[in-house]
Amino acid sequence: MSSEFGNKIKISVFGQSHGESIGVVINGLPSGEAIDFNELQTFMERRRGGKNAFSTKRSEADIPEFVSGIANGKTCGMPLCAIIRNGDKRSSDYSELLDKPRPGHADYTAFVKWSGNADMRGGGHFSGRLTAPLCIAGGIAKQILARRGIYVGAHLDSVAGIRDKRFEMTDGRELFEEIATKDFPVIDTVAGEQMKAAIISASGELDSVGGVIECMVTGMPAGIGEPMFDGVENRLASALFGIPAVKGVEFGRGFETALLKGSENNDPYIIENGEIKTATNNAGGILGGITNGAPVVVRTAIKPTPSISREQDTVSLSEMTAQKLVVKGRHDPCIAQRAVPVVEAVTAAVLLDMLIGG
Amino acid sequence: MSSEFGNKIKISVFGQSHGESIGVVINGLPSGEAIDFNELQTFMERRRGGKNAFSTKRSEADIPEFVSGIANGKTCGMPLCAIIRNGDKRSSDYSELLDKPRPGHADYTAFVKWSGNADMRGGGHFSGRLTAPLCIAGGIAKQILARRGIYVGAHLDSVAGIRDKRFEMTDGRELFEEIATKDFPVIDTVAGEQMKAAIISASGELDSVGGVIECMVTGMPAGIGEPMFDGVENRLASALFGIPAVKGVEFGRGFETALLKGSENNDPYIIENGEIKTATNNAGGILGGITNGAPVVVRTAIKPTPSISREQDTVSLSEMTAQKLVVKGRHDPCIAQRAVPVVEAVTAAVLLDMLIGG
Amino acid sequence: MSSEFGNKIKISVFGQSHGESIGVVINGLPSGEAIDFNELQTFMERRRGGKNAFSTKRSEADIPEFVSGIANGKTCGMPLCAIIRNGDKRSSDYSELLDKPRPGHADYTAFVKWSGNADMRGGGHFSGRLTAPLCIAGGIAKQILARRGIYVGAHLDSVAGIRDKRFEMTDGRELFEEIATKDFPVIDTVAGEQMKAAIISASGELDSVGGVIECMVTGMPAGIGEPMFDGVENRLASALFGIPAVKGVEFGRGFETALLKGSENNDPYIIENGEIKTATNNAGGILGGITNGAPVVVRTAIKPTPSISREQDTVSLSEMTAQKLVVKGRHDPCIAQRAVPVVEAVTAAVLLDMLIGG
Amino acid sequence: MSSEFGNKIKISVFGQSHGESIGVVINGLPSGEAIDFNELQTFMERRRGGKNAFSTKRSEADIPEFVSGIANGKTCGMPLCAIIRNGDKRSSDYSELLDKPRPGHADYTAFVKWSGNADMRGGGHFSGRLTAPLCIAGGIAKQILARRGIYVGAHLDSVAGIRDKRFEMTDGRELFEEIATKDFPVIDTVAGEQMKAAIISASGELDSVGGVIECMVTGMPAGIGEPMFDGVENRLASALFGIPAVKGVEFGRGFETALLKGSENNDPYIIENGEIKTATNNAGGILGGITNGAPVVVRTAIKPTPSISREQDTVSLSEMTAQKLVVKGRHDPCIAQRAVPVVEAVTAAVLLDMLIGG
Repeated sequence: MSSEFGNKIKISVFGQSHGESIGVVINGLPSGEAIDFNELQTFMERRRGGKNAFSTKRSEADIPEFVSGIANGKTCGMPLCAIIRNGDKRSSDYSELLDKPRPGHADYTAFVKWSGNADMRGGGHFSGRLTAPLCIAGGIAKQILARRGIYVGAHLDSVAGIRDKRFEMTDGRELFEEIATKDFPVIDTVAGEQMKAAIISASGELDSVGGVIECMVTGMPAGIGEPMFDGVENRLASALFGIPAVKGVEFGRGFETALLKGSENNDPYIIENGEIKTATNNAGGILGGITNGAPVVVRTAIKPTPSISREQDTVSLSEMTAQKLVVKGRHDPCIAQRAVPVVEAVTAAVLLDMLIGG
Repeated sequence: MSSEFGNKIKISVFGQSHGESIGVVINGLPSGEAIDFNELQTFMERRRGGKNAFSTKRSEADIPEFVSGIANGKTCGMPLCAIIRNGDKRSSDYSELLDKPRPGHADYTAFVKWSGNADMRGGGHFSGRLTAPLCIAGGIAKQILARRGIYVGAHLDSVAGIRDKRFEMTDGRELFEEIATKDFPVIDTVAGEQMKAAIISASGELDSVGGVIECMVTGMPAGIGEPMFDGVENRLASALFGIPAVKGVEFGRGFETALLKGSENNDPYIIENGEIKTATNNAGGILGGITNGAPVVVRTAIKPTPSISREQDTVSLSEMTAQKLVVKGRHDPCIAQRAVPVVEAVTAAVLLDMLIGG
Repeated sequence: MSSEFGNKIKISVFGQSHGESIGVVINGLPSGEAIDFNELQTFMERRRGGKNAFSTKRSEADIPEFVSGIANGKTCGMPLCAIIRNGDKRSSDYSELLDKPRPGHADYTAFVKWSGNADMRGGGHFSGRLTAPLCIAGGIAKQILARRGIYVGAHLDSVAGIRDKRFEMTDGRELFEEIATKDFPVIDTVAGEQMKAAIISASGELDSVGGVIECMVTGMPAGIGEPMFDGVENRLASALFGIPAVKGVEFGRGFETALLKGSENNDPYIIENGEIKTATNNAGGILGGITNGAPVVVRTAIKPTPSISREQDTVSLSEMTAQKLVVKGRHDPCIAQRAVPVVEAVTAAVLLDMLIGG
Repeated sequence: MSSEFGNKIKISVFGQSHGESIGVVINGLPSGEAIDFNELQTFMERRRGGKNAFSTKRSEADIPEFVSGIANGKTCGMPLCAIIRNGDKRSSDYSELLDKPRPGHADYTAFVKWSGNADMRGGGHFSGRLTAPLCIAGGIAKQILARRGIYVGAHLDSVAGIRDKRFEMTDGRELFEEIATKDFPVIDTVAGEQMKAAIISASGELDSVGGVIECMVTGMPAGIGEPMFDGVENRLASALFGIPAVKGVEFGRGFETALLKGSENNDPYIIENGEIKTATNNAGGILGGITNGAPVVVRTAIKPTPSISREQDTVSLSEMTAQKLVVKGRHDPCIAQRAVPVVEAVTAAVLLDMLIGG
């Protein structure tokens, strides 16, 4: 299935970093849904680089052109296609890499898989640039979900080991909007400043750092998800691992549950305002793959950017000899902060799909 | 798609814990593959409960009956169906639970999703019992992979916070076989004894503990996996979250990568015996979703068994009142050790599918 | 995907003609649907052979054993598995065929595909016997559809060129039930007698005849089906070609439309009782792949039974020499009449799936 | 899945007739395949209208712009996206139709399905115009197949009941190329002239005619196709019904087999040059859904163009009253001849997918 995910709503991403265009085709969106293009552009802006010292100097307007699927500003039920032309690309920075694969990148695995045919300039189809079309799809999904009382927000749970506060069960839309307007997506601004300092410090050392993103979804009704292999966890995990650099996905207390007793981890049921709720949310809103009405909570580990300017050991594919590599080009010393809206986008797309029966 | 996973090899699991039978249909297995039924039974025995103080007293022979797909002891290319009759079930233990959902279990979400129609006796289709048919499928996959030089092994990375040694890049078949013959699946027997003690202690407190399972696969060729949403990570994560109680999945260094610098996390390329290798394996054998030839390493977090005999807070679904619940029945104080072969099974099934182009 | 079809409702068929059992797993059935097992058995009886001179002498009770997915006589939302044990098989009749492929059968193509590993005794997985589990699935689908006012019926449009009357736009449930109780599934009993005579005559000549089956569905609401490749026609055609011996599928006037003018073929819209209808139904209830509220009409061409007792030319696979073949065993001189409920079953299964959003 | 088909090679079509652009995304093409863009354009030209009296006066250059998936003139393994800008559209011709659905068209069913949100100007996503992107995908597939010795050709089997010669078992590449260069795609030029006359005559009567297209594929190896629901017939039928106006699909002798005896219809096996062949090809190269090495033969019934200038009966959707309709705009009096390359395209795409294991 490669570059596509979703069941009733299918999202198919195309493009290479230094090709003509990147874009997305979305099949199966509900029809008659108005799209707020300004809001969408604001959302996409959160992902965009070239704005500050924490991210790549490659600067791209990332303005999608919608070529199908919309009539009178609304979804018309037909496949929606949006395209972003690639500008400001400097393929010359990448010529050396065609023979010397960057450690930690897909250069080598793509070389093996496609026998050298893959267009890997700028990371090709594996570039973080491909998350822009994901944000088009997810940004639209977020708008449609919000109209149904479902809100999706995310923040940096940590960068370089510096921890932000975590979402609480009672958080929601307001906090999500507050984070979205910040220049750095954290709850605790002080922790955010420390994270920024860590990123700039790593950058100064020609190195990079990783982070963890926490995403929460409020308003999901109970009963969404299929058993075993088609539950909310399976579907979200499968899609989230499609974001470049993700190496781990956990729900609720996740890996921490392995340290807990059953009596600590189980979320007791209570009656609140005539409705069944859980008193805590260690399960991250999902039991047996199916939503229980509590907020869905998922955390995603983002590895440090593999493209670093330090000298690294690699090999020459043509000569089969050991080589030293210094990656040139404009790279983010940390991609976790830019991945925050991407995680929201993918999460929103998966949950909208499941909500409408996909 | 619910209770099915896989692409070319499709594995469809059926049955309820206290129904007539459980079983599996496997479509798309390569034909002409001999099945060693003794080896398969030995593998299934590793999952079986009722053997010792660490696991449920429900004792089931778990001997599959193969009703299709095999001719002359070999796969014949047609759908393979295997069935296990349910014995030793005590539904009476569960009658109270139909109205009082167990915290941490799918009782409540299944009730909402299927409007009370779901057969949830003994956990129904959400029971850990459904991992027995998974082991049939995965046990066969393991045999077919081994014939191609690919070996799948797993152990308890931790239980209740007590850590085993981790797999090293150079480990493989021999260590896997050694672990498989132990009564408790660890590398470090001393750590294993401590884990057992922790389980027995939790059991004595009418409580339960969780754990983490590490699985490694050696011999996978480089170049397996599709980009973005259909890579090895997406496929394994999606399937592994189908195992009951899994709350997190990570590859290679996983969540730890968020604490590393790029220069620490990147695996340098080297030439060894005329072949390109990585010097380290922080990526867990996967870059851009595609195998790089290093061992595939995946860890899975298993939450503490939700069924505990301590009194818990729940509600009455019919009366909408707060209730106390003491879960009766025969439950494992820890399921992580029994899930070890299940993780191997699911991992083997996914990788065999991808290896043959699925 | 091989032996499985459907989207939300997935039907997976397993078994070989002379294996231990045949059966079906159905995922995704709506929960809480009562199953009338007597009605189901009556439906399955319509497919069964061994009853008269027109069909095989192989006599099988075809009584399904339900091993999962049902609780208290109702679907419980979990995968439903039903199994039929194979009795009365005479594999000795088939030993010669393992080396001498029967013309018109899958013997040769299966041999090539599975390198001789396929269990082709009695036609193996390609046997008409595999339509029994299809009838379990379709019989249940018919009951669920009927509860929603949707009725599925079929008859022999022709056998050996002898034509029955065709369904009219106003026909429906009553006529369907009348046909279902006849010993030969036609509207016009006289035509039916001529068909029987043609079958018996062919049988006397050690030969076989084919036929066409017309199936109609009343009560389908307008608006069901997705555009282009996932419409009602695509889905029905794909599934109907899964019935052994089907060589053509057409909707409404089908191939005849190629002989009509646009002014003859277009179905004019009218208002009737405040609802939009079509005055005629040349489209077979489907426009652009989507139902228009008129009855869905589909016809399926069934080739003459390939297993005939006349001497035929074939080859020895082992010796690569020309050979004469006389097929022994108990074969139907015509399978079209037994395929009538099978066409109903497959049609019902597909439409129920699409109706519930699959 | 809507506007997408294929398994390993997924073809996703987007666009509305009068929207900004139409196009296609193709996932999973083999990498390193050179594309002859001139040959592709020549192939697309065969579909294009505006050239003569038999087809629409809407004249479009149909020159695809390739925005991803190609590097150095070869497929690079990444999703290929090609776009065609819509020119020469006259939406004013269609304004009346938004309230008065054209008989025989998807106007009404789309209105019901998408509650009036669908952009149906010019037929919207249901327009024959969407077959242009199909021809991009299929034209590329044809080139890749030809490189493997597999050739796909088609001709008009009949128009308005006037029959062309049929393909013979020994026909192939040369005849396919000869037909492709003709101004009217028939084997027998005399029959072709009669067909043209019938089309022009219908056009003079403000009416339209239908036809049948026969497609043949030579060089397919034996053993391609999965059993039951994923065979060559299922896959081809499902995709071919995605072409607008198709109402029937048959393989080999198709509906005629219902008139034959088994002894007439079975294709005897023979040895020829040390290989197993069939003496005849009534099966159209497919037995049990699996290729037998003989040419694959499929025929597709194309209904008469529903858009005719004669007055027709329809209704007003807003007023729920009977109305007369005279369809304006530029319509083909017959679309069968333009659909010939489209049938080739879809057939090639499906068979390439199956050939590489999809």
